[in-house]
Amino acid sequence: MEKTVRFGVSMEKDLLEKFDDLISQRNYKNRSEALRDLIRSELVKEEWLQDQVTAGVLSFVYDHHIPGLMAKLTDIQHEYGPLIHASMHIHIDHHNCLETIVLTGKARSIQAFADKMLSIRGVKHGMLHSVSRGSNL
Amino acid sequence: MEKTVRFGVSMEKDLLEKFDDLISQRNYKNRSEALRDLIRSELVKEEWLQDQVTAGVLSFVYDHHIPGLMAKLTDIQHEYGPLIHASMHIHIDHHNCLETIVLTGKARSIQAFADKMLSIRGVKHGMLHSVSRGSNL
Amino acid sequence: MEKTVRFGVSMEKDLLEKFDDLISQRNYKNRSEALRDLIRSELVKEEWLQDQVTAGVLSFVYDHHIPGLMAKLTDIQHEYGPLIHASMHIHIDHHNCLETIVLTGKARSIQAFADKMLSIRGVKHGMLHSVSRGSNL
Amino acid sequence: MEKTVRFGVSMEKDLLEKFDDLISQRNYKNRSEALRDLIRSELVKEEWLQDQVTAGVLSFVYDHHIPGLMAKLTDIQHEYGPLIHASMHIHIDHHNCLETIVLTGKARSIQAFADKMLSIRGVKHGMLHSVSRGSNL
Repeated sequence: MEKTVRFGVSMEKDLLEKFDDLISQRNYKNRSEALRDLIRSELVKEEWLQDQVTAGVLSFVYDHHIPGLMAKLTDIQHEYGPLIHASMHIHIDHHNCLETIVLTGKARSIQAFADKMLSIRGVKHGMLHSVSRGSNL
Repeated sequence: MEKTVRFGVSMEKDLLEKFDDLISQRNYKNRSEALRDLIRSELVKEEWLQDQVTAGVLSFVYDHHIPGLMAKLTDIQHEYGPLIHASMHIHIDHHNCLETIVLTGKARSIQAFADKMLSIRGVKHGMLHSVSRGSNL
Repeated sequence: MEKTVRFGVSMEKDLLEKFDDLISQRNYKNRSEALRDLIRSELVKEEWLQDQVTAGVLSFVYDHHIPGLMAKLTDIQHEYGPLIHASMHIHIDHHNCLETIVLTGKARSIQAFADKMLSIRGVKHGMLHSVSRGSNL
Repeated sequence: MEKTVRFGVSMEKDLLEKFDDLISQRNYKNRSEALRDLIRSELVKEEWLQDQVTAGVLSFVYDHHIPGLMAKLTDIQHEYGPLIHASMHIHIDHHNCLETIVLTGKARSIQAFADKMLSIRGVKHGMLHSVSRGSNL
Protein backbone atom coordinates (compact mmCIF):
# COMPACT_ATOMS: atom_id res chain seq x y z
CA MET A 1 0.00 0.00 0.00
CA GLU A 2 1.43 3.35 -0.99
CA LYS A 3 1.94 6.00 1.63
CA THR A 4 -0.35 8.99 1.37
CA VAL A 5 0.64 12.47 2.48
CA ARG A 6 -1.40 15.63 2.90
CA PHE A 7 -0.46 19.21 2.12
CA GLY A 8 -2.18 22.60 1.99
CA VAL A 9 -2.93 24.65 -1.09
CA SER A 10 -3.91 28.31 -1.08
CA MET A 11 -6.11 29.75 -3.78
CA GLU A 12 -8.30 32.74 -4.56
CA LYS A 13 -11.86 31.98 -3.44
CA ASP A 14 -13.25 32.73 -6.93
CA LEU A 15 -10.80 30.45 -8.66
CA LEU A 16 -11.57 27.62 -6.28
CA GLU A 17 -15.31 27.98 -6.91
CA LYS A 18 -14.75 27.78 -10.66
CA PHE A 19 -12.57 24.74 -10.20
CA ASP A 20 -15.23 23.08 -8.07
CA ASP A 21 -17.83 23.68 -10.80
CA LEU A 22 -15.55 22.30 -13.47
CA ILE A 23 -14.68 19.10 -11.64
CA SER A 24 -18.28 18.40 -10.68
CA GLN A 25 -19.16 18.66 -14.40
CA ARG A 26 -16.42 16.12 -15.07
CA ASN A 27 -17.82 13.82 -12.39
CA TYR A 28 -15.07 14.10 -9.83
CA LYS A 29 -16.08 13.32 -6.27
CA ASN A 30 -13.35 15.42 -4.65
CA ARG A 31 -10.63 17.96 -5.41
CA SER A 32 -7.72 15.72 -4.49
CA GLU A 33 -8.52 13.19 -7.19
CA ALA A 34 -9.03 15.94 -9.79
CA LEU A 35 -5.69 17.52 -8.87
CA ARG A 36 -3.90 14.18 -8.92
CA ASP A 37 -5.25 13.60 -12.43
CA LEU A 38 -4.00 16.99 -13.63
CA ILE A 39 -0.59 16.22 -12.18
CA ARG A 40 -0.44 12.77 -13.69
CA SER A 41 -1.27 14.21 -17.12
CA GLU A 42 1.72 16.52 -16.87
CA LEU A 43 3.97 13.62 -15.85
CA VAL A 44 2.81 11.60 -18.86
CA LYS A 45 3.63 14.50 -21.20
CA GLU A 46 7.15 14.49 -19.75
CA GLU A 47 7.54 10.72 -20.23
CA TRP A 48 6.97 11.30 -23.94
CA LEU A 49 9.05 14.46 -24.26
CA GLN A 50 12.01 12.84 -22.46
CA ASP A 51 11.84 9.63 -24.54
CA GLN A 52 11.31 7.49 -21.46
CA VAL A 53 9.92 3.94 -21.42
CA THR A 54 6.20 4.43 -21.71
CA ALA A 55 3.06 2.98 -23.28
CA GLY A 56 1.27 4.10 -26.42
CA VAL A 57 -1.87 3.10 -28.26
CA LEU A 58 -1.88 3.19 -32.04
CA SER A 59 -5.38 3.32 -33.49
CA PHE A 60 -6.13 3.28 -37.20
CA VAL A 61 -8.91 2.66 -39.67
CA TYR A 62 -8.39 0.77 -42.90
CA ASP A 63 -10.22 -0.91 -45.73
CA HIS A 64 -9.53 -4.63 -45.43
CA HIS A 65 -10.50 -5.23 -49.07
CA ILE A 66 -7.30 -3.68 -50.38
CA PRO A 67 -5.14 -6.53 -51.66
CA GLY A 68 -2.00 -7.19 -49.65
CA LEU A 69 -2.79 -4.60 -46.97
CA MET A 70 -3.36 -6.94 -44.04
CA ALA A 71 -0.20 -8.87 -44.85
CA LYS A 72 1.84 -5.65 -44.89
CA LEU A 73 0.40 -4.50 -41.57
CA THR A 74 1.20 -7.87 -40.04
CA ASP A 75 4.76 -7.92 -41.40
CA ILE A 76 5.60 -4.59 -39.81
CA GLN A 77 4.15 -5.73 -36.50
CA HIS A 78 6.41 -8.74 -36.52
CA GLU A 79 9.42 -6.55 -37.30
CA TYR A 80 8.64 -4.48 -34.18
CA GLY A 81 7.56 -7.49 -32.12
CA PRO A 82 9.16 -6.58 -28.77
CA LEU A 83 7.22 -3.30 -28.63
CA ILE A 84 3.81 -4.86 -29.14
CA HIS A 85 1.64 -6.13 -26.31
CA ALA A 86 -1.59 -6.92 -28.05
CA SER A 87 -3.93 -5.68 -30.70
CA MET A 88 -7.67 -5.58 -31.08
CA HIS A 89 -9.64 -5.55 -34.30
CA ILE A 90 -13.13 -4.11 -34.71
CA HIS A 91 -15.32 -4.63 -37.78
CA ILE A 92 -16.88 -1.20 -38.21
CA ASP A 93 -18.81 -1.92 -41.41
CA HIS A 94 -18.49 -3.93 -44.61
CA HIS A 95 -15.32 -2.05 -45.63
CA ASN A 96 -13.80 -0.48 -42.57
CA CYS A 97 -11.77 -2.05 -39.78
CA LEU A 98 -10.54 -0.20 -36.74
CA GLU A 99 -7.47 -1.61 -35.07
CA THR A 100 -5.81 -0.61 -31.81
CA ILE A 101 -2.35 -1.80 -30.87
CA VAL A 102 -0.96 -1.38 -27.36
CA LEU A 103 2.79 -0.77 -27.31
CA THR A 104 5.36 -0.32 -24.57
CA GLY A 105 8.94 0.84 -25.04
CA LYS A 106 10.91 4.04 -25.54
CA ALA A 107 8.78 6.87 -26.85
CA ARG A 108 10.75 7.29 -30.06
CA SER A 109 10.68 3.61 -30.99
CA ILE A 110 6.93 3.60 -30.56
CA GLN A 111 6.76 6.67 -32.81
CA ALA A 112 8.91 5.00 -35.49
CA PHE A 113 6.59 2.00 -35.54
CA ALA A 114 3.57 4.28 -35.82
CA ASP A 115 5.10 6.20 -38.75
CA LYS A 116 5.62 2.94 -40.63
CA MET A 117 2.09 1.73 -40.08
CA LEU A 118 0.27 4.98 -40.79
CA SER A 119 2.08 5.75 -44.05
CA ILE A 120 0.83 2.59 -45.74
CA ARG A 121 -1.64 3.04 -48.56
CA GLY A 122 -5.06 1.80 -47.50
CA VAL A 123 -4.63 2.94 -43.89
CA LYS A 124 -7.10 5.77 -44.13
CA HIS A 125 -6.49 7.49 -40.86
CA GLY A 126 -4.71 6.76 -37.65
CA MET A 127 -2.98 8.30 -34.72
CA LEU A 128 -0.51 7.38 -32.05
CA HIS A 129 -1.81 8.19 -28.60
CA SER A 130 0.58 8.72 -25.75
CA VAL A 131 -0.53 6.82 -22.65
CA SER A 132 1.74 5.56 -19.86
CA ARG A 133 2.72 2.31 -18.21
CA GLY A 134 1.42 3.76 -14.97
CA SER A 135 4.43 2.69 -12.94
CA ASN A 136 5.65 6.29 -12.55
CA LEU A 137 2.28 7.75 -11.73
CA MET B 1 -14.36 -0.10 -56.14
CA GLU B 2 -14.19 3.63 -55.56
CA LYS B 3 -13.65 5.97 -58.46
CA THR B 4 -10.31 7.74 -58.46
CA VAL B 5 -9.78 11.17 -59.97
CA ARG B 6 -6.63 13.13 -60.67
CA PHE B 7 -5.97 16.85 -60.32
CA GLY B 8 -3.01 19.20 -60.52
CA VAL B 9 -1.41 21.07 -57.65
CA SER B 10 1.00 23.97 -58.05
CA MET B 11 3.67 24.65 -55.45
CA GLU B 12 6.94 26.52 -54.99
CA LYS B 13 9.83 24.23 -55.94
CA ASP B 14 11.50 24.70 -52.53
CA LEU B 15 8.36 23.86 -50.60
CA LEU B 16 7.83 20.72 -52.66
CA GLU B 17 11.39 19.57 -51.97
CA LYS B 18 10.90 20.03 -48.24
CA PHE B 19 7.63 18.14 -48.40
CA ASP B 20 9.31 15.29 -50.29
CA ASP B 21 12.00 15.07 -47.59
CA LEU B 22 9.42 15.05 -44.83
CA ILE B 23 7.26 12.33 -46.30
CA SER B 24 10.21 10.09 -47.12
CA GLN B 25 11.21 10.36 -43.43
CA ARG B 26 7.67 9.28 -42.56
CA ASN B 27 7.92 6.33 -44.96
CA TYR B 28 5.46 7.44 -47.58
CA LYS B 29 5.98 5.93 -51.01
CA ASN B 30 4.32 8.80 -52.91
CA ARG B 31 2.93 12.30 -52.49
CA SER B 32 -0.67 11.40 -53.21
CA GLU B 33 -0.92 9.07 -50.22
CA ALA B 34 0.75 11.62 -47.93
CA LEU B 35 -1.66 14.33 -49.08
CA ARG B 36 -4.67 12.06 -48.71
CA ASP B 37 -3.59 11.36 -45.13
CA LEU B 38 -3.29 15.07 -44.33
CA ILE B 39 -6.76 15.65 -45.79
CA ARG B 40 -8.29 12.74 -43.90
CA SER B 41 -6.84 14.07 -40.62
CA GLU B 42 -8.62 17.37 -41.20
CA LEU B 43 -11.89 15.58 -41.95
CA VAL B 44 -11.60 13.59 -38.72
CA LYS B 45 -11.09 16.81 -36.72
CA GLU B 46 -14.32 18.10 -38.25
CA GLU B 47 -16.23 14.89 -37.37
CA TRP B 48 -15.38 15.60 -33.73
CA LEU B 49 -15.96 19.35 -33.82
CA GLN B 50 -19.36 18.91 -35.51
CA ASP B 51 -20.49 16.17 -33.08
CA GLN B 52 -20.98 13.67 -35.88
CA VAL B 53 -21.16 9.90 -35.51
CA THR B 54 -17.58 8.82 -35.18
CA ALA B 55 -15.27 6.40 -33.38
CA GLY B 56 -13.11 7.01 -30.33
CA VAL B 57 -10.63 5.02 -28.33
CA LEU B 58 -10.49 5.49 -24.59
CA SER B 59 -7.20 4.32 -23.08
CA PHE B 60 -6.45 4.37 -19.38
CA VAL B 61 -4.12 2.93 -16.78
CA TYR B 62 -5.29 1.81 -13.38
CA ASP B 63 -4.25 -0.16 -10.35
CA HIS B 64 -6.43 -3.28 -10.26
CA HIS B 65 -5.71 -3.82 -6.53
CA ILE B 66 -7.96 -0.95 -5.49
CA PRO B 67 -11.09 -2.49 -3.96
CA GLY B 68 -14.26 -2.01 -5.96
CA LEU B 69 -12.53 -0.29 -8.87
CA MET B 70 -13.04 -2.95 -11.51
CA ALA B 71 -16.69 -3.32 -10.58
CA LYS B 72 -17.22 0.44 -10.93
CA LEU B 73 -15.52 0.53 -14.33
CA THR B 74 -17.66 -2.34 -15.51
CA ASP B 75 -20.89 -0.78 -14.23
CA ILE B 76 -20.31 2.41 -16.19
CA GLN B 77 -19.55 0.43 -19.31
CA HIS B 78 -22.87 -1.37 -19.01
CA GLU B 79 -24.66 1.94 -18.56
CA TYR B 80 -23.18 3.16 -21.87
CA GLY B 81 -23.48 -0.23 -23.55
CA PRO B 82 -24.66 0.86 -27.01
CA LEU B 83 -21.53 3.02 -27.48
CA ILE B 84 -19.07 0.24 -26.72
CA HIS B 85 -17.68 -2.12 -29.35
CA ALA B 86 -15.01 -3.97 -27.45
CA SER B 87 -12.30 -3.53 -24.89
CA MET B 88 -8.84 -4.94 -24.44
CA HIS B 89 -6.97 -5.36 -21.20
CA ILE B 90 -3.17 -5.47 -20.87
CA HIS B 91 -1.31 -6.50 -17.70
CA ILE B 92 1.51 -3.99 -17.62
CA ASP B 93 3.04 -5.08 -14.33
CA HIS B 94 1.99 -6.43 -10.94
CA HIS B 95 -0.09 -3.32 -10.20
CA ASN B 96 -0.91 -1.59 -13.45
CA CYS B 97 -3.45 -2.47 -16.09
CA LEU B 98 -3.89 -0.64 -19.35
CA GLU B 99 -7.29 -0.83 -20.92
CA THR B 100 -8.47 0.42 -24.32
CA ILE B 101 -12.13 0.66 -25.21
CA VAL B 102 -13.32 1.23 -28.76
CA LEU B 103 -16.48 3.32 -28.96
CA THR B 104 -18.71 4.50 -31.80
CA GLY B 105 -21.46 7.07 -31.54
CA LYS B 106 -21.93 10.83 -31.45
CA ALA B 107 -18.78 12.65 -30.41
CA ARG B 108 -20.34 14.21 -27.31
CA SER B 109 -21.77 10.95 -25.97
CA ILE B 110 -18.38 9.33 -26.32
CA GLN B 111 -16.90 12.29 -24.41
CA ALA B 112 -19.48 11.96 -21.62
CA PHE B 113 -18.61 8.30 -21.18
CA ALA B 114 -14.89 9.14 -21.08
CA ASP B 115 -15.42 11.82 -18.42
CA LYS B 116 -17.22 9.30 -16.20
CA MET B 117 -14.52 6.69 -16.52
CA LEU B 118 -11.49 8.96 -16.13
CA SER B 119 -12.75 10.75 -13.03
CA ILE B 120 -12.89 7.55 -10.98
CA ARG B 121 -10.38 7.26 -8.17
CA GLY B 122 -7.81 4.61 -9.03
CA VAL B 123 -7.81 5.42 -12.72
CA LYS B 124 -4.38 7.00 -12.74
CA HIS B 125 -4.32 8.45 -16.18
CA GLY B 126 -6.30 8.16 -19.35
CA MET B 127 -7.33 9.95 -22.44
CA LEU B 128 -10.02 9.85 -25.06
CA HIS B 129 -8.57 9.70 -28.54
CA SER B 130 -10.60 10.80 -31.51
CA VAL B 131 -10.45 8.30 -34.34
CA SER B 132 -13.08 7.79 -37.03
CA ARG B 133 -15.35 5.07 -38.35
CA GLY B 134 -13.64 5.49 -41.70
CA SER B 135 -16.87 5.53 -43.67
CA ASN B 136 -16.54 9.26 -44.46
CA LEU B 137 -12.88 9.14 -45.38
CA MET C 1 -7.93 42.43 -3.04
CA GLU C 2 -9.24 38.94 -3.70
CA LYS C 3 -9.95 36.64 -0.81
CA THR C 4 -7.64 33.65 -0.51
CA VAL C 5 -8.74 30.33 0.97
CA ARG C 6 -6.74 27.28 1.94
CA PHE C 7 -7.64 23.60 1.57
CA GLY C 8 -5.94 20.24 2.02
CA VAL C 9 -4.96 17.81 -0.73
CA SER C 10 -4.00 14.19 -0.18
CA MET C 11 -1.63 12.43 -2.49
CA GLU C 12 0.61 9.35 -2.70
CA LYS C 13 4.09 10.28 -1.44
CA ASP C 14 5.73 9.09 -4.68
CA LEU C 15 3.42 11.12 -6.87
CA LEU C 16 4.02 14.24 -4.82
CA GLU C 17 7.80 13.81 -5.13
CA LYS C 18 7.51 13.52 -8.90
CA PHE C 19 5.32 16.59 -9.00
CA ASP C 20 7.84 18.53 -6.92
CA ASP C 21 10.61 17.58 -9.34
CA LEU C 22 8.55 18.59 -12.34
CA ILE C 23 7.57 21.99 -11.01
CA SER C 24 11.08 22.83 -9.89
CA GLN C 25 12.23 22.10 -13.47
CA ARG C 26 9.57 24.51 -14.64
CA ASN C 27 10.80 27.16 -12.18
CA TYR C 28 7.84 27.19 -9.83
CA LYS C 29 8.59 28.43 -6.33
CA ASN C 30 5.74 26.55 -4.67
CA ARG C 31 3.08 23.92 -5.27
CA SER C 32 0.11 26.23 -4.88
CA GLU C 33 1.13 28.40 -7.82
CA ALA C 34 1.81 25.35 -10.00
CA LEU C 35 -1.60 23.88 -9.14
CA ARG C 36 -3.35 27.19 -9.74
CA ASP C 37 -1.75 27.31 -13.21
CA LEU C 38 -2.93 23.78 -14.03
CA ILE C 39 -6.45 24.72 -12.94
CA ARG C 40 -6.46 27.96 -14.90
CA SER C 41 -5.38 26.09 -18.04
CA GLU C 42 -8.40 23.82 -17.70
CA LEU C 43 -10.70 26.81 -17.24
CA VAL C 44 -9.31 28.42 -20.39
CA LYS C 45 -9.97 25.24 -22.39
CA GLU C 46 -13.59 25.44 -21.20
CA GLU C 47 -13.92 29.11 -22.20
CA TRP C 48 -13.09 28.06 -25.75
CA LEU C 49 -15.16 24.87 -25.80
CA GLN C 50 -18.23 26.69 -24.45
CA ASP C 51 -17.88 29.60 -26.92
CA GLN C 52 -17.59 32.14 -24.10
CA VAL C 53 -16.17 35.64 -24.44
CA THR C 54 -12.44 35.14 -24.39
CA ALA C 55 -9.19 36.38 -25.91
CA GLY C 56 -7.18 34.87 -28.74
CA VAL C 57 -3.93 35.63 -30.45
CA LEU C 58 -3.63 35.06 -34.18
CA SER C 59 -0.03 34.75 -35.35
CA PHE C 60 0.98 34.32 -38.96
CA VAL C 61 3.94 34.63 -41.30
CA TYR C 62 3.67 36.07 -44.78
CA ASP C 63 5.70 37.38 -47.65
CA HIS C 64 5.02 41.10 -47.88
CA HIS C 65 6.23 41.23 -51.50
CA ILE C 66 3.12 39.51 -52.81
CA PRO C 67 1.06 42.17 -54.61
CA GLY C 68 -2.20 43.06 -52.92
CA LEU C 69 -1.62 40.84 -49.89
CA MET C 70 -1.24 43.55 -47.25
CA ALA C 71 -4.33 45.35 -48.54
CA LYS C 72 -6.38 42.15 -48.31
CA LEU C 73 -5.19 41.43 -44.77
CA THR C 74 -6.07 44.97 -43.75
CA ASP C 75 -9.52 44.83 -45.38
CA ILE C 76 -10.49 41.73 -43.42
CA GLN C 77 -9.26 43.30 -40.19
CA HIS C 78 -11.52 46.28 -40.77
CA GLU C 79 -14.47 43.99 -41.48
CA TYR C 80 -13.92 42.34 -38.06
CA GLY C 81 -12.98 45.59 -36.35
CA PRO C 82 -14.81 45.13 -33.02
CA LEU C 83 -12.91 41.91 -32.31
CA ILE C 84 -9.47 43.40 -32.78
CA HIS C 85 -7.50 45.04 -29.98
CA ALA C 86 -4.15 45.60 -31.56
CA SER C 87 -1.62 44.03 -33.87
CA MET C 88 2.13 43.90 -33.96
CA HIS C 89 4.32 43.45 -37.01
CA ILE C 90 7.85 42.00 -36.96
CA HIS C 91 10.25 42.11 -39.92
CA ILE C 92 11.81 38.66 -39.78
CA ASP C 93 13.96 38.97 -42.89
CA HIS C 94 13.89 40.54 -46.34
CA HIS C 95 10.79 38.55 -47.34
CA ASN C 96 9.02 37.38 -44.22
CA CYS C 97 6.83 39.28 -41.81
CA LEU C 98 5.36 37.85 -38.64
CA GLU C 99 2.20 39.45 -37.40
CA THR C 100 0.30 38.87 -34.16
CA ILE C 101 -3.22 40.17 -33.63
CA VAL C 102 -4.87 40.20 -30.21
CA LEU C 103 -8.60 39.58 -30.36
CA THR C 104 -11.37 39.47 -27.79
CA GLY C 105 -14.91 38.26 -28.35
CA LYS C 106 -16.86 35.03 -28.57
CA ALA C 107 -14.65 32.05 -29.34
CA ARG C 108 -16.40 31.20 -32.61
CA SER C 109 -16.23 34.73 -34.00
CA ILE C 110 -12.53 34.82 -33.29
CA GLN C 111 -12.22 31.49 -35.12
CA ALA C 112 -14.16 32.79 -38.13
CA PHE C 113 -11.82 35.77 -38.41
CA ALA C 114 -8.79 33.47 -38.17
CA ASP C 115 -10.12 31.19 -40.93
CA LYS C 116 -10.51 34.18 -43.25
CA MET C 117 -7.00 35.46 -42.61
CA LEU C 118 -5.16 32.14 -42.76
CA SER C 119 -6.73 30.95 -46.01
CA ILE C 120 -5.35 33.88 -48.01
CA ARG C 121 -2.69 33.07 -50.56
CA GLY C 122 0.65 34.46 -49.40
CA VAL C 123 -0.04 33.80 -45.73
CA LYS C 124 2.43 30.95 -45.41
CA HIS C 125 1.55 29.68 -42.01
CA GLY C 126 -0.42 30.81 -39.06
CA MET C 127 -2.39 29.66 -36.10
CA LEU C 128 -5.03 30.90 -33.76
CA HIS C 129 -3.99 30.51 -30.15
CA SER C 130 -6.57 30.39 -27.42
CA VAL C 131 -5.68 32.67 -24.53
CA SER C 132 -8.12 34.27 -22.10
CA ARG C 133 -9.19 37.70 -20.95
CA GLY C 134 -8.15 36.69 -17.47
CA SER C 135 -11.29 38.02 -15.83
CA ASN C 136 -12.55 34.50 -15.06
CA LEU C 137 -9.28 33.16 -13.80
CA MET D 1 10.57 35.21 -57.59
CA GLU D 2 10.33 31.61 -56.51
CA LYS D 3 9.94 28.93 -59.11
CA THR D 4 6.60 27.17 -59.12
CA VAL D 5 6.17 23.57 -60.20
CA ARG D 6 3.06 21.53 -60.88
CA PHE D 7 2.37 17.89 -60.09
CA GLY D 8 -0.58 15.50 -60.21
CA VAL D 9 -2.40 14.03 -57.22
CA SER D 10 -4.79 11.08 -57.42
CA MET D 11 -7.63 10.74 -54.96
CA GLU D 12 -10.91 8.90 -54.48
CA LYS D 13 -13.73 11.04 -55.92
CA ASP D 14 -15.64 11.00 -52.62
CA LEU D 15 -12.64 12.11 -50.59
CA LEU D 16 -11.95 14.97 -52.99
CA GLU D 17 -15.55 16.18 -52.71
CA LYS D 18 -15.33 16.20 -48.92
CA PHE D 19 -12.06 18.07 -49.09
CA ASP D 20 -13.58 20.65 -51.45
CA ASP D 21 -16.45 21.20 -48.99
CA LEU D 22 -14.08 21.59 -46.08
CA ILE D 23 -11.80 24.11 -47.74
CA SER D 24 -14.66 26.21 -49.04
CA GLN D 25 -15.93 26.40 -45.43
CA ARG D 26 -12.48 27.61 -44.44
CA ASN D 27 -12.54 30.23 -47.22
CA TYR D 28 -9.91 28.79 -49.50
CA LYS D 29 -10.17 29.84 -53.13
CA ASN D 30 -8.40 26.78 -54.52
CA ARG D 31 -7.06 23.36 -53.56
CA SER D 32 -3.41 24.18 -54.14
CA GLU D 33 -3.35 26.87 -51.47
CA ALA D 34 -5.19 24.64 -48.98
CA LEU D 35 -2.73 21.80 -49.60
CA ARG D 36 0.27 24.12 -49.33
CA ASP D 37 -1.05 25.27 -45.95
CA LEU D 38 -1.43 21.69 -44.70
CA ILE D 39 2.13 20.95 -45.81
CA ARG D 40 3.55 24.09 -44.22
CA SER D 41 1.86 23.18 -40.91
CA GLU D 42 3.65 19.84 -40.92
CA LEU D 43 6.98 21.54 -41.66
CA VAL D 44 6.47 23.92 -38.75
CA LYS D 45 5.79 20.98 -36.39
CA GLU D 46 9.12 19.52 -37.50
CA GLU D 47 10.99 22.82 -36.90
CA TRP D 48 9.88 22.59 -33.27
CA LEU D 49 10.44 18.85 -32.83
CA GLN D 50 13.97 19.09 -34.29
CA ASP D 51 14.93 22.11 -32.18
CA GLN D 52 15.63 24.24 -35.24
CA VAL D 53 15.82 28.04 -35.33
CA THR D 54 12.22 29.13 -35.42
CA ALA D 55 9.82 31.76 -34.12
CA GLY D 56 7.44 31.55 -31.19
CA VAL D 57 4.82 33.78 -29.64
CA LEU D 58 4.42 33.79 -25.88
CA SER D 59 1.03 35.13 -24.80
CA PHE D 60 0.02 35.55 -21.18
CA VAL D 61 -2.48 37.31 -18.96
CA TYR D 62 -1.55 38.88 -15.66
CA ASP D 63 -2.79 41.21 -12.99
CA HIS D 64 -0.62 44.31 -13.15
CA HIS D 65 -1.60 45.33 -9.60
CA ILE D 66 0.54 42.63 -8.03
CA PRO D 67 3.56 44.38 -6.49
CA GLY D 68 6.87 43.66 -8.16
CA LEU D 69 5.35 41.56 -10.96
CA MET D 70 6.05 43.86 -13.87
CA ALA D 71 9.65 44.35 -12.72
CA LYS D 72 10.17 40.59 -12.56
CA LEU D 73 8.71 40.05 -16.03
CA THR D 74 10.97 42.76 -17.42
CA ASP D 75 14.08 41.38 -15.71
CA ILE D 76 13.63 37.96 -17.29
CA GLN D 77 13.10 39.53 -20.69
CA HIS D 78 16.40 41.34 -20.38
CA GLU D 79 18.15 38.13 -19.37
CA TYR D 80 16.89 36.49 -22.58
CA GLY D 81 17.36 39.63 -24.67
CA PRO D 82 18.74 38.10 -27.88
CA LEU D 83 15.65 35.90 -28.27
CA ILE D 84 13.15 38.73 -28.06
CA HIS D 85 11.97 40.73 -31.06
CA ALA D 86 9.19 42.79 -29.62
CA SER D 87 6.31 42.68 -27.24
CA MET D 88 2.84 44.14 -27.21
CA HIS D 89 0.74 44.97 -24.20
CA ILE D 90 -3.07 45.10 -24.16
CA HIS D 91 -5.14 46.53 -21.30
CA ILE D 92 -8.00 44.06 -21.10
CA ASP D 93 -9.76 45.56 -18.08
CA HIS D 94 -8.96 47.33 -14.83
CA HIS D 95 -6.94 44.34 -13.55
CA ASN D 96 -5.90 42.21 -16.47
CA CYS D 97 -3.17 42.76 -19.02
CA LEU D 98 -2.51 40.52 -21.97
CA GLU D 99 1.00 40.53 -23.31
CA THR D 100 2.42 38.86 -26.42
CA ILE D 101 6.14 38.50 -27.00
CA VAL D 102 7.57 37.48 -30.36
CA LEU D 103 10.72 35.39 -30.07
CA THR D 104 13.13 33.87 -32.55
CA GLY D 105 15.86 31.35 -31.76
CA LYS D 106 16.27 27.64 -31.16
CA ALA D 107 13.05 25.95 -30.11
CA ARG D 108 14.37 24.80 -26.74
CA SER D 109 15.72 28.21 -25.73
CA ILE D 110 12.37 29.76 -26.52
CA GLN D 111 10.75 27.07 -24.38
CA ALA D 112 13.12 27.77 -21.47
CA PHE D 113 12.24 31.46 -21.57
CA ALA D 114 8.53 30.62 -21.63
CA ASP D 115 8.85 28.31 -18.61
CA LYS D 116 10.50 31.10 -16.62
CA MET D 117 7.83 33.64 -17.48
CA LEU D 118 4.78 31.43 -17.02
CA SER D 119 5.79 30.07 -13.62
CA ILE D 120 5.80 33.51 -11.99
CA ARG D 121 3.10 34.16 -9.44
CA GLY D 122 0.62 36.67 -10.81
CA VAL D 123 0.89 35.38 -14.36
CA LYS D 124 -2.54 33.82 -14.42
CA HIS D 125 -2.36 31.92 -17.64
CA GLY D 126 -0.16 31.80 -20.66
CA MET D 127 1.06 29.62 -23.43
CA LEU D 128 3.94 29.40 -25.82
CA HIS D 129 2.76 29.11 -29.40
CA SER D 130 4.98 27.61 -32.03
CA VAL D 131 5.04 29.72 -35.18
CA SER D 132 7.88 29.89 -37.70
CA ARG D 133 10.25 32.42 -39.21
CA GLY D 134 8.80 31.55 -42.58
CA SER D 135 12.16 31.26 -44.28
CA ASN D 136 11.84 27.48 -44.62
CA LEU D 137 8.27 27.51 -45.81
